[in-house]
Formats: sequence, structure tokens, C-alpha cells
Amino acid sequence: MLRHGLQMARGLCQLLSDKFSVGLHRNIMKHLLPINATGHAWSPLRNIRAVTQMAPWPFSSSQPRDYSLPNASWSAEMQRLYDQYSSMCEVETEGSEKKKGAWRRLPSYNRTLKYATGGRCLSRMLQAKARLFTRNIEEQGAGFEYVVFINKEEKTCVCVFQAGHLLEGPPGHVHGGAIATIIDSVTGTHATYISGPVMTANLTINYRSPIPLGSVVLVHSALDKVEGRKTFISCQVTSSDGAKLHTEATGLFVSINVSHLFGA
Amino acid sequence: MLRHGLQMARGLCQLLSDKFSVGLHRNIMKHLLPINATGHAWSPLRNIRAVTQMAPWPFSSSQPRDYSLPNASWSAEMQRLYDQYSSMCEVETEGSEKKKGAWRRLPSYNRTLKYATGGRCLSRMLQAKARLFTRNIEEQGAGFEYVVFINKEEKTCVCVFQAGHLLEGPPGHVHGGAIATIIDSVTGTHATYISGPVMTANLTINYRSPIPLGSVVLVHSALDKVEGRKTFISCQVTSSDGAKLHTEATGLFVSINVSHLFGA
Repeated sequence: MLRHGLQMARGLCQLLSDKFSVGLHRNIMKHLLPINATGHAWSPLRNIRAVTQMAPWPFSSSQPRDYSLPNASWSAEMQRLYDQYSSMCEVETEGSEKKKGAWRRLPSYNRTLKYATGGRCLSRMLQAKARLFTRNIEEQGAGFEYVVFINKEEKTCVCVFQAGHLLEGPPGHVHGGAIATIIDSVTGTHATYISGPVMTANLTINYRSPIPLGSVVLVHSALDKVEGRKTFISCQVTSSDGAKLHTEATGLFVSINVSHLFGA
Repeated sequence: MLRHGLQMARGLCQLLSDKFSVGLHRNIMKHLLPINATGHAWSPLRNIRAVTQMAPWPFSSSQPRDYSLPNASWSAEMQRLYDQYSSMCEVETEGSEKKKGAWRRLPSYNRTLKYATGGRCLSRMLQAKARLFTRNIEEQGAGFEYVVFINKEEKTCVCVFQAGHLLEGPPGHVHGGAIATIIDSVTGTHATYISGPVMTANLTINYRSPIPLGSVVLVHSALDKVEGRKTFISCQVTSSDGAKLHTEATGLFVSINVSHLFGA
């Protein structure tokens, strides 16, 4: 029974960790899943919280790499934007005290939990080897280099994205699918922050201007509205100075009914 | 001057080879770019043809790997569907003669030509290392395993797609961005076949049902209409038996005016 409970908790964790692909486990879970600390009876939410606090994989012996931290492949522009948003994550007040600012950087890992929802298990091979699509290349700078910042007050997200040389579509430019991928990741993360566990239902993407390989762009995500189970997000991909619009998109995300995750 | 001409030819090749990401060089070029074989004066089209016949990289000493051919990672279902469509690529008639059928398999490589259009060159590092997004993982079976067949008579495409374990989004399932990527690749290839060189202008994707990692699905692409420079394609991703609809999409592709490629 306990094992069954843990498996169910894992199931929810996995589904949640879909949109936690950029590492929302610890950051979002505490907003979404309050714990009844005094409860002794088994509680799905309590177990979920317990597991997700050990994100991204509770049974791992070592601390996983946080892919959203600077590395040697980052260009000066990428680093500058990272520093700019990081500086807004905490504000220095009088007396040199620091308090939290409106922005928060979200950590990011290369795997999610490995059991599929609904009681269906992946093969052991897939469990062991599966990697998040946006973090599946180990070579720094070759694939998606990105970091997501979220503004709790304004309910917006900004992603600083440096496109590596393995993301080519049109010669010398980023593949339309890679652009769709970063948009899905950022807007999905944003929707999860707003509405809790969600799945992508629609992406509508208008490609205005191609993005050169190796360049740094900003992905701006804004909440349009929430209607029942639907969360509507809009998104713009611009040059790092905001002057050039590369891509516009909207995303529709549908909230998941937690009871469904437990086969109810 | 000759060098300048070759560079311009390269430029066009690169742009064309955007949608040749699944290897349309030889298959489409002969439809798009007729040669004036008797001309001695430099001709952009003649040079382009000469270069693209040596697809995908005319200065390579070895034949590049065709990623659309079967390999050990392909599941029985993937192989079965490959065999099924391959068998329709040529039809055996009476007297055991073979003639070409309506279907054609498109080869697929992991790189395009390396000079950006418009005279702007990529860095030498990027030129040497850039790889097509859908073919950027060398490990067989880990990323996108796919093969595209095109039906010249019906103006449709079918892609047999096996999703590897590095494409994870929701735990145990394919990332929405990876689905967008295969849709962009297949519909873009299709639009190029219909209308010549194009760029993706819009993708609208409705996600109906998640795709389990490791499974084989079919991507069906159909021509809706051509209006001036715009080619409209619709697309469905289904289970391998066609019974389950995973994703629906439409794509709008805009033809490129060749004169623009030469800075006219």
C-alpha cells in the first residue's frame, strides 16, 4: 500500500515535472502543494511534496547539474542578460540588507522522473536513459543554452536563450522546430506557475524573422487569461535588445485534474 | 568573379537546403532547377544544380550517411512501415518488369551547406560543426528516427517516425517541441516539393493525445491549397495503425523569390 502510494505520488510528480522541465520542482511545488505537516495518514499531496522537494530524482545519490547556470560556452551577451535578470532577483535595500526582488531564476535539469502516469511503466532502458528534449546534449553550447526567470508580481516570464550549432534548420539559422521547442518550454513553465499542472493543448506560431545560429534572443511570455481549466499565454521571441521581432506565438494549456492522475 | 558566382550559388543552395533537411537535394532539384546544359557563360542555376547534385556537401570526400535508411535501433513496427511504403515506391507489373510507383523515399542527411545567405558568412566553427536539428544525435535510436515518403500523384507525404528516449517532455512521452519539429520538417519538405524554396511562416498545432517515448507514429501531410506565394499544408500525427489521433496541425509556407537570394 505504501509502495502503491509512493508510485502514485511518483506518477503525479512525473506529470508535474513535464512543465518542470526547466526545474520548477522546488520553486513551484511550494506554491502549488501546501503540506499538512501534522497529518499522519497517507496523503497524496504530502507524499508528492516530499518527493518533489528532492527534485529532480529522489533516489539519486548525487546532486544533479543545474543547466541554467552560466558555463564557458555562454557568450558575453548571454552572460550580460543573465547578470541583468539575476540582479533583479534580489534588491539591495538601505543598510546593505538584501531582500527578494520580483524575479526568480528557475533551475533546470536534464531529466524528469521516470515512471509514466496511469500505472503504465516505461521499459527500464527508457527509465534509465530518457532525457529532457531541451537538455539532451551534454556538450556545452551545442544545443539549447537557456535560463528562465519568472516575475511573480507581473506574472511574466523571460527566457534568455542562446541557440547552439546543433539546432540548425535553414542554413546558418535556427530550426523552426527548435524555436517551437523553446516556446513550448517557456510558455508551459509559465502556465504551470499560474495554474498548476497543465498539458499543452495548442501552439500557434508565427515566424517573422529567422534567428541566426549562435545568437542570443529573449523569449518573453505573458499571461493573457485563465478561463476555467484553460490558461492562455502569449509569447514573443526578440533580439537581445528587443528591437527585432523574430517570432510570435500563443499557447493554450489545459489544467490536469489531479484525481485523473490516480485513475479516479 | 567565379568565386563570387560560386558563393552566390552556395547561398541559394543553403536556403534551398533548409527544406532539404530531409534530403531533397537530388529529388527536388531536378524538378525545380532545369539546366541549360549548353550554356558556357556563368549561370546561377547551372552552378546551383552542379553543386546540389553533389548533395549535401560538394567538397566532402566521402559519401554522407543517409539517415533515412533502416538501422538496428528501428523497431519491428518501424521496419514494417518502411517496407510497406518502400514496396509502393516501385510496382511490379506483368512480365516481372518493374516500373516506378507513385511513392518515393527521400534521403536525409545531418547537415546543410554552411554559408548563410545574403553574403553573410557564419564563423568557421559554426560552418564546420553545424548540424541539422533533427539529425544532430549520432546514437541510433536516441533521437529522431524517421523516413519521409512522398506521393507525387496525390501530392501527399507520409513520415514514419520513431521517437527516441532523448526526446522526452512529459515523463515517458514525447516533448511538444519535438512533435512540432517533426511536423515542421515534414510539412516544410512537402511544401518545398509543391512550390519550390519556401520558409515556414506559421505553424498551428493542436495536441490531442500524448505520444509515448519509443513508439512509432505516422505523420501524414496533405496539400490544402496554393495561393500566390503561399502554400497551405495540413498534417495529422496518428498511431501507426491510424486509429489514434495524436496531433493535428496546419502549416503556412511562403515561397522565396530567388532574385532576393542574389541581393536583387
